Amino acid sequence: MESTCTIAVVGFGGMGGHHVEHLEEIDAFEVAGIYDIRPSQEDLAREKGLHVYTTFEDVLADKKVDIVLIATPNHLHKEIAVKSMRAGKHVICEKPATMNSEEMEEIIDVEKETGQLFVVNQNRRWDEDYLVVKKLHDERAIGDVFHVECRVHGSRGIPGDWRQKKQFGGGMLLDWGVHLVDRVLLMFDEKVEDVYCTFSHVRNDEVDDGFKLTLTFASGKTAFLEVGTYNYINLPLWYVNGTRGSAVIHDWSMKGEVVHLETDEQKDAKPISAGAGLTKTMAPRYDDGTVRHQQLPRIDSNIEDFYLNVKDTIDGKADILVKNEEVLRVMRLLETAIESDATRQVVGFEKDVKVRE
Amino acid sequence: MESTCTIAVVGFGGMGGHHVEHLEEIDAFEVAGIYDIRPSQEDLAREKGLHVYTTFEDVLADKKVDIVLIATPNHLHKEIAVKSMRAGKHVICEKPATMNSEEMEEIIDVEKETGQLFVVNQNRRWDEDYLVVKKLHDERAIGDVFHVECRVHGSRGIPGDWRQKKQFGGGMLLDWGVHLVDRVLLMFDEKVEDVYCTFSHVRNDEVDDGFKLTLTFASGKTAFLEVGTYNYINLPLWYVNGTRGSAVIHDWSMKGEVVHLETDEQKDAKPISAGAGLTKTMAPRYDDGTVRHQQLPRIDSNIEDFYLNVKDTIDGKADILVKNEEVLRVMRLLETAIESDATRQVVGFEKDVKVRE
Repeated sequence: MESTCTIAVVGFGGMGGHHVEHLEEIDAFEVAGIYDIRPSQEDLAREKGLHVYTTFEDVLADKKVDIVLIATPNHLHKEIAVKSMRAGKHVICEKPATMNSEEMEEIIDVEKETGQLFVVNQNRRWDEDYLVVKKLHDERAIGDVFHVECRVHGSRGIPGDWRQKKQFGGGMLLDWGVHLVDRVLLMFDEKVEDVYCTFSHVRNDEVDDGFKLTLTFASGKTAFLEVGTYNYINLPLWYVNGTRGSAVIHDWSMKGEVVHLETDEQKDAKPISAGAGLTKTMAPRYDDGTVRHQQLPRIDSNIEDFYLNVKDTIDGKADILVKNEEVLRVMRLLETAIESDATRQVVGFEKDVKVRE
Repeated sequence: MESTCTIAVVGFGGMGGHHVEHLEEIDAFEVAGIYDIRPSQEDLAREKGLHVYTTFEDVLADKKVDIVLIATPNHLHKEIAVKSMRAGKHVICEKPATMNSEEMEEIIDVEKETGQLFVVNQNRRWDEDYLVVKKLHDERAIGDVFHVECRVHGSRGIPGDWRQKKQFGGGMLLDWGVHLVDRVLLMFDEKVEDVYCTFSHVRNDEVDDGFKLTLTFASGKTAFLEVGTYNYINLPLWYVNGTRGSAVIHDWSMKGEVVHLETDEQKDAKPISAGAGLTKTMAPRYDDGTVRHQQLPRIDSNIEDFYLNVKDTIDGKADILVKNEEVLRVMRLLETAIESDATRQVVGFEKDVKVRE
């Protein structure tokens, strides 16, 4: 019989509840209970038949708990993680792992010191939209991808809780930016040389309620990552340019298309009337030389694989998929983005410092 | 009876022919003939029943010619303009007016010296798509517009002639950038503080075959202007964000929509399942609080007004619409964009130099 892994969830808000739902579906896991400082959330947990720990110390003292899953506001992650590892628990932590790279370095030190596992829930590595873009990239389906754009647009502002406050690690760069950067760094497996970022403060002066982030990689490839919370019309979730085609994914329903350039021979463009002028350059192709696929490739992705990889790693049967050095690199890049916005400059990142002879 | 204005067209390529077609439709103008160094274009002109000048000097010597219209490659504009004005002719010049701001300053000097008119065909100020965006902006139909994006995407590369060469003033920044910048500077009537530009060289190392240009205005408003010639799928022509709504124009056929925020009261968002995760922030609005207009406002625009304004200005009945100081400002901004791409930095523009006390 397979062993099971027992988890206590600290912070029973939206994400805490979401984790419990997933974990209850996986045989290899058992939820020991939850801890939350809010009586309303304690009541909710009891209604769902979950054990409620009275204090965080009770969680740590519970010998059957193998893993503490942290789903609190961001400013609490580090302290809870460190205490949990020192108490002999493994840790699954919501993203962003920490408030800054210094805190993440401290966690990595404690992980080494205690021999426990600390892993961040970069769940959006399992998003089908991202995996389809990565597949197009990896399989060179549109030639060499040299530019990718990912936009996440909403119009409701930042949800009205701690995510609006700086002291709790609020703002969209830490909330969504941490996913978008994480994924593009995995896809373009090379150094980032330049970072240019501008924050929006449409209705929130304290934290960014959106951002636009341009990364320039060592090979010259570029990524544009954007989050907006006052966009009443959404631009496509993904837009990708390769040397032999383009791809678009409109939204999470996976509507989109791929256009592949089959031959470099093209009919001579006839100038078209466009607005008040003529244009030959922007004359459409009428599909000469290109093939249009209005169905995207499909990828089966299951977020359960994240949890199972954690267990397999603890059991010594696998390597961890979400690596802490990757998380630390993303955190450093986000700090560079913050510097770019503050200074209104392009800021170097991972640039080889070479002395010219 | 109204007087007519007689025009000679120098450079009878695509744009030269386009001008002749327009001018022949307007009673107030008469086409005296064309001049082109290419025998093929001379033959074409004769087939169309146009007079063909044998030398440029013949054009200048023709006393009935009031206006020389320049539609040659860009590197020739300045010399032809200066000679024409010195010969007592007014000048209509294709865009970009000149190769750089220095040449434009020289033209402005000669204009003052000779008392002739020099005017640039910034014809895309008459594009209906731009005029609709400007109307939304001016009438505050989506609140205060704080960000505008304009993209012109094609997939045929740069047409295979002088536009691919640096020495002739090729590249997309000079070709299309000069329009996109011109218009956004008219719409946001304020100083530009920062310029960030990256060129693409997908298949052309000599000139930019595309660019991405971010302008930050003194009030914090931003504009993103993009041209691409290897985009096999087009993103919308215009995307506009205001404090109370968004607008999109998909293409020159004027398909698009406007979403206006009617009330700040909104139903509490319910988290939605998106990819491998949940999101409350990006939950759609289900139109609570917003009104969606799937028909854009229409604007009647006629490029004939450009030519008529030139004549009225010559006749002392109007002020010129396309002002040379506007053209010079755009040219300086394009030079700043070139500097930004070359240095991979944000470059200041029109910043007030203030000494902090």
